[in-house]
Amino acid sequence: MSFEIVADCGHARAGLLRTPHGTVETPAFMPVGTRGSVRGILPSQLADAGAHILLANAYHLFLRPGDEVVRDLGGLHGFTGWKGPWLTDSGGFQVFSLGELVKVVEEGVRFKSPIDGASHFLTPEDSIRIQENLGADVIMAFDECVRQPATPEQTRAAVDRTIRWARRCRDAHRREGQMLFGIVQGGTDLKERDRCAAPLLDLDFPGYAIGGLSVGEDRPAMLATLDHTAALLPRGKPRYFMGLGKPDDLLDAIRRGVDMFDCVIGTRNGRHGTVFTSEGALHLRNKRFERDSGPLDPVCGCPACRNFSRAYLSHLFKAEEMLGPILASLHNTWHLVGLVRDARRRIVDGTFR
Amino acid sequence: MSFEIVADCGHARAGLLRTPHGTVETPAFMPVGTRGSVRGILPSQLADAGAHILLANAYHLFLRPGDEVVRDLGGLHGFTGWKGPWLTDSGGFQVFSLGELVKVVEEGVRFKSPIDGASHFLTPEDSIRIQENLGADVIMAFDECVRQPATPEQTRAAVDRTIRWARRCRDAHRREGQMLFGIVQGGTDLKERDRCAAPLLDLDFPGYAIGGLSVGEDRPAMLATLDHTAALLPRGKPRYFMGLGKPDDLLDAIRRGVDMFDCVIGTRNGRHGTVFTSEGALHLRNKRFERDSGPLDPVCGCPACRNFSRAYLSHLFKAEEMLGPILASLHNTWHLVGLVRDARRRIVDGTFR
Repeated sequence: MSFEIVADCGHARAGLLRTPHGTVETPAFMPVGTRGSVRGILPSQLADAGAHILLANAYHLFLRPGDEVVRDLGGLHGFTGWKGPWLTDSGGFQVFSLGELVKVVEEGVRFKSPIDGASHFLTPEDSIRIQENLGADVIMAFDECVRQPATPEQTRAAVDRTIRWARRCRDAHRREGQMLFGIVQGGTDLKERDRCAAPLLDLDFPGYAIGGLSVGEDRPAMLATLDHTAALLPRGKPRYFMGLGKPDDLLDAIRRGVDMFDCVIGTRNGRHGTVFTSEGALHLRNKRFERDSGPLDPVCGCPACRNFSRAYLSHLFKAEEMLGPILASLHNTWHLVGLVRDARRRIVDGTFR
Repeated sequence: MSFEIVADCGHARAGLLRTPHGTVETPAFMPVGTRGSVRGILPSQLADAGAHILLANAYHLFLRPGDEVVRDLGGLHGFTGWKGPWLTDSGGFQVFSLGELVKVVEEGVRFKSPIDGASHFLTPEDSIRIQENLGADVIMAFDECVRQPATPEQTRAAVDRTIRWARRCRDAHRREGQMLFGIVQGGTDLKERDRCAAPLLDLDFPGYAIGGLSVGEDRPAMLATLDHTAALLPRGKPRYFMGLGKPDDLLDAIRRGVDMFDCVIGTRNGRHGTVFTSEGALHLRNKRFERDSGPLDPVCGCPACRNFSRAYLSHLFKAEEMLGPILASLHNTWHLVGLVRDARRRIVDGTFR
């Protein structure tokens, strides 16, 4: 396992992340298969879209079908049919999203399963064990994601706990052939980002994520925090901006030296009839597409654009046919993966501004 | 356009139905794309499954997006992305399924749209015009499907109207390169089947359907009616059993000389987690599949069986992931199309009993 920068252009970098299940060209957009399946899209279709690595969520797979079931069926690579690289998020973000159902203590997190109401207690060590069972190529530390807006005291306490838990995660991690990334928290407080990054760098993780950003703060604050945080991270290690996926945001973050991205926006918007195109977003339920014989995006080579018209897609959504969400999700995945791949090409060419 | 019998084995026949958009090897199972889309399955995946012809419904497409929209966007072949042969059902069966919302007079049928409550009046001539706009290779006469159980008087009246409307359909049909099939009604009353078939044969349709069967009557009555009705139809023309799709029923009907079938059972059961296999039906939500690493069906070559385990499919259904219904529908389509294709091969070989 290694990370190599092969070209840069300003702060932007093109790299190669080598994993036991294949090499990921970075910058890379990772389609999200929270429960081990990218919604509505087959692994072969993801490969056709140019995806190199997928993301799954340890928390969701722990609850169902259970990480030991996944382990016994060959880990994520065997269980899901996607044989290429996987990254699992630790589940910190999802647990903290449960709101009233979660209680945090120093040892870990107590929460009720939203599936069956069963009570669970999850520690950083549990999260690592779960992620070892799932067997992804890249796994994430179990962090505390404070809910926004947060007071300075809440942000500080979450940073402190994130640091202590990162050390416990690193100490608990045993599995070979699996990279554990640290996560820098701190909200939009640059001093807290400094305070979080320093001890995590001492722990010498093979990669670092920027967490708790693009969670509702305004855009200038997001970009300022990103500028500041990216500059704190070691040049030679991959940088992953968790949960970022809007086309403009991806390009802004690549420009600031980020290497990896994930977001549900492509499949979620696709399911609801909104597609990204080179000319902006289209809402397929809009009446003006009912007789539009053109493709979703004339410059896109995806199966939806090659074979179907906007009018047909519009009909599928109005008739509530499954093929509508499928095709729109597929198109959006091609669009986002392709956008990041094109940025990489221009970094290599030296034409990425 | 022509129909040629290339082999027979008992009453069973293997044929070639030549249409402007390709040749259909019969017996053929037609996947159902009621609204111009087979639920959850791409046209390219249907071709991979071995489907030669799809079915759509004139009534549904008339209501949405409108048959003129489909016509202006290239007919079904241009609009939907399936460039091979299409068959449209006239919509008679669907209109009569509306129950309280429908009123039949000699001129036609008045009904309220279940989409928006708008009132529509549809005549046999309208149905033909709609089907001409949709542009399928095979279209169906507009018939009266009496609701079961029916009194002898109701059955008799529906047969009389079906005959009169069949003549009006034939007289209204103008479009070249499009076959109009007649539909034999009469419930399980063999005398009514005789009485319906004779005048329809005089009208010399290029093919005949058996309607109003497999709609709730018991199996011996269904088979006796099929035996009787198939024997009434001209040997040299294609015979289509409307709405039949259970595996055992398909084989029984092929054995009795039926050439064409359609049924939603593959995709509908698939969406609900039931798959057909060489060893019978499996209900994927059943607990026993949670750790089953085998394919849905060891003898199936479909993308679901080649790439995924029963355990993964079970997980997809429990997690309500779209890929579950997609893969199960795809598998069932392969199974039904393949079952009928294998029967054809054995008819040609002379090994079909």
